[in-house]
Amino acid sequence: MSKGLTPRSSDYARWYTDVVLKAELADYGPVRGSMVIRPYGYAIWELLQAALDSRFKATGHVNAYFPLLIPKSFLSKEAEHVEGFAKECAVVTHHRLRAAADGGLEVDPDSKLDEELIIRPTSETVIWSMYKRWINSYRDLPILINQWANIVRWELRTRLFLRTTEFLWQEGHTAHASEAEAQEEALRILDIYRDVIETEMALPVIKGVKSESEKFPGAVNTYTIETMMGDKRALQAGTSHYLGQNFAKAFDVTFRNQHNEQEYVYATSWGVTTRLVGAIVMAHGDDRGLRLPPRIAPYQVVIVPIYKDDTRALVLEEATRIRDSISENGTRVHLDARDTVSPGFKFSDWEMKGAPLRVEIGPRDVAQNNAVLVRRDSGEKQDIASVNIATFIPPLLDEIQTVLFQQALDFREANTHRPKNWEAFKTIIEQGGFARCGWDGESETEATIQEETKATIRVIPENQDPSDLKCIHSGKPAQYEVILAKAY
Amino acid sequence: MSKGLTPRSSDYARWYTDVVLKAELADYGPVRGSMVIRPYGYAIWELLQAALDSRFKATGHVNAYFPLLIPKSFLSKEAEHVEGFAKECAVVTHHRLRAAADGGLEVDPDSKLDEELIIRPTSETVIWSMYKRWINSYRDLPILINQWANIVRWELRTRLFLRTTEFLWQEGHTAHASEAEAQEEALRILDIYRDVIETEMALPVIKGVKSESEKFPGAVNTYTIETMMGDKRALQAGTSHYLGQNFAKAFDVTFRNQHNEQEYVYATSWGVTTRLVGAIVMAHGDDRGLRLPPRIAPYQVVIVPIYKDDTRALVLEEATRIRDSISENGTRVHLDARDTVSPGFKFSDWEMKGAPLRVEIGPRDVAQNNAVLVRRDSGEKQDIASVNIATFIPPLLDEIQTVLFQQALDFREANTHRPKNWEAFKTIIEQGGFARCGWDGESETEATIQEETKATIRVIPENQDPSDLKCIHSGKPAQYEVILAKAY
Repeated sequence: MSKGLTPRSSDYARWYTDVVLKAELADYGPVRGSMVIRPYGYAIWELLQAALDSRFKATGHVNAYFPLLIPKSFLSKEAEHVEGFAKECAVVTHHRLRAAADGGLEVDPDSKLDEELIIRPTSETVIWSMYKRWINSYRDLPILINQWANIVRWELRTRLFLRTTEFLWQEGHTAHASEAEAQEEALRILDIYRDVIETEMALPVIKGVKSESEKFPGAVNTYTIETMMGDKRALQAGTSHYLGQNFAKAFDVTFRNQHNEQEYVYATSWGVTTRLVGAIVMAHGDDRGLRLPPRIAPYQVVIVPIYKDDTRALVLEEATRIRDSISENGTRVHLDARDTVSPGFKFSDWEMKGAPLRVEIGPRDVAQNNAVLVRRDSGEKQDIASVNIATFIPPLLDEIQTVLFQQALDFREANTHRPKNWEAFKTIIEQGGFARCGWDGESETEATIQEETKATIRVIPENQDPSDLKCIHSGKPAQYEVILAKAY
Repeated sequence: MSKGLTPRSSDYARWYTDVVLKAELADYGPVRGSMVIRPYGYAIWELLQAALDSRFKATGHVNAYFPLLIPKSFLSKEAEHVEGFAKECAVVTHHRLRAAADGGLEVDPDSKLDEELIIRPTSETVIWSMYKRWINSYRDLPILINQWANIVRWELRTRLFLRTTEFLWQEGHTAHASEAEAQEEALRILDIYRDVIETEMALPVIKGVKSESEKFPGAVNTYTIETMMGDKRALQAGTSHYLGQNFAKAFDVTFRNQHNEQEYVYATSWGVTTRLVGAIVMAHGDDRGLRLPPRIAPYQVVIVPIYKDDTRALVLEEATRIRDSISENGTRVHLDARDTVSPGFKFSDWEMKGAPLRVEIGPRDVAQNNAVLVRRDSGEKQDIASVNIATFIPPLLDEIQTVLFQQALDFREANTHRPKNWEAFKTIIEQGGFARCGWDGESETEATIQEETKATIRVIPENQDPSDLKCIHSGKPAQYEVILAKAY
């Protein structure tokens, strides 16, 4: 167990915050609810961005940028949307400060805006106000736009990465000439999310659809991928919405179809956020800190040289040679040559930061043309001939990636239960885990379950089969088989 | 001349806006002063981002992300900084909306913030509030952080890309243990900017330093790179500031140096913005639209197939084959296979959008294993055997890049004058161009020159020599040789 790190078993929430702070992924900002993403955390986000962006582009999407500030009136154009976002908006009311009597600054009352502006909590409204201008005919469709942006939703109880007033995300907003095409798009993106989260983040997902009460404000359907964290709670890793014609109607966006008739445009929107960095911590971390899947590790290998004054030059020369040979095939490797801290400090530091592989090299290793390789996932150590190290590492990184995925999958399976009755259900939720069971499809039942247990319907999984099931709460015949759990 | 495009000679400002809109680089947003960066314009920005980001990283910089919202009080901590930014701030005063009597939304007065927040006009203050937490000893230095972010400075008179309330940029903020190291950093970055703007954007720059009145609010020195646009006005393409200990003092950021003494940290900051996209338009555009330097063209080659119904399959098959062969070595190529518009429309469209090379291919070309290659820079056409096209194109793109740079350099040289007296100076400024001349170093002189001619000191160039010069306005011995011009 790492010094100063709260054990997961004693206080999971505190363990999480400890890891985020000690691994220097993020820090609290000066304003309540705000977060600073530090370079090491941002480097993980950049790797996720690259993985997502390349897949978006390979499927015909392009990036664009829309304004941060949205007229207040836009928010109220779609009925469910306003309900969903009006209560958590940062509102800009003035555009100038002036000197105050006390020597500080005050808002200049003469700079009051005619119409207040809100900082985007999501961009459907501003984007559809532009699509109205750009779309006339079926020839203008589809529009397949994605945006990388910051978002503000007012939050006071901060949990770094998971719940902050501002976060970073990508938001796709597409416009189509038919319902079928838009539905297909929403599902195509959901599968890109599944692929990135399973392949890059080594985190198994459950694909499916949200219940009415859990869907995005303004959507017809919200597709989701749900994951299980290390404390057996659920985390929604990404959502993709089929919006039907709701926003097209709200902003009067029609197109001339191939039969020369005017028709409202069909839409999707979809997003994942920086909370994914938090999911990586919670899915793979242990009592020594972070364990990063190699594919999204800023440094896949960290070399720690061990020397005294008289062996420093010798060891650093060999360590540099090994670093260069490892990096040749594109492996991200870092030689930690700090003279200001001890090797032991570096070992714990890189364990905390979750580097998948550590290479230790001291004077005796140099003499024997040797190095010591330590796996972060298992702690396993082995001696390896320096000459073999560069070819040995890539398959080992692949193996670690696979092991982390398998561990997360095994953990999820071991903690997913099929309760037969309400008492068993309550016990599962209380002790933690996913309950896979029948639901009668009634919003009232859903609300009661949540009230009594704090569990929500995370997802109606794509391979669900309610035919032999009864609702876990009402006992009525099940309409859906669902996954219920407490969630982030 | 392209249909509907205002000629540059008749109204340069309108020509500029026409090109930006017709090339679909950007559009006006719904709020006054706001802009939407459309996919084609954003793709250019992405290429610039990649060019900058890779150079930042190669010189040891890392990316991070700091909060959008800054406490009002932070702004007033550095005296010059507050003067520079308080008058153009978007101010957040509330965090919630509620239903209004008229069925719309209104600001909920109960959600008023204790301290108003401003949307970052630049991030020095919030970043130095964090550096205070992260810096204790010389061991924590240097910090070499860059941020890609959006910025708001209130503007009402919009010019797309050049002056908008919100824009995108990168801002570097570094912390150092010595003045020499910080000064070196500021100049290292200035040279990265020069390299990107000359090499990628094909735009020659003049490196140097700003006068007192033109420097960044809070800087000790502002280094700048200035460029000349097609209407002979100057555009500041990037700035790099040596901040001394100003922000360290404002936020009380000290470090224990190697002699175990407490010392204030030395700082730099530096940025370039999406206005560079506007600079590309103005530096290289002509009366047919945009001319993109190949290195930052989203599509370096566009293939326009020419066919009738009976030759469609034949031509498209050959066009696809040519596209694939061109893209094999990494050239960005697009086959414009739209059936909804004519080849002639596509020719003008891609001229407007500035694609460096166009390949035309019709049935007769297919029969002769031929294609027609058209250069956007010169309009020059040539037949080329299809088999040679893939190897022919990369050196041709290099040549176009060189030609655009040389044209911009020749234009700047031809329009840079060394006036001998005040009358000659006024004529130059009136007719347009750079005046390179002596200045007595007095702020009053500078102000008078600006008042009388609207020209400002753009830069004190690095290779200046005032020894034989008199001030162009006061006639006193020159302290500096400077470049004066009207500017964007």
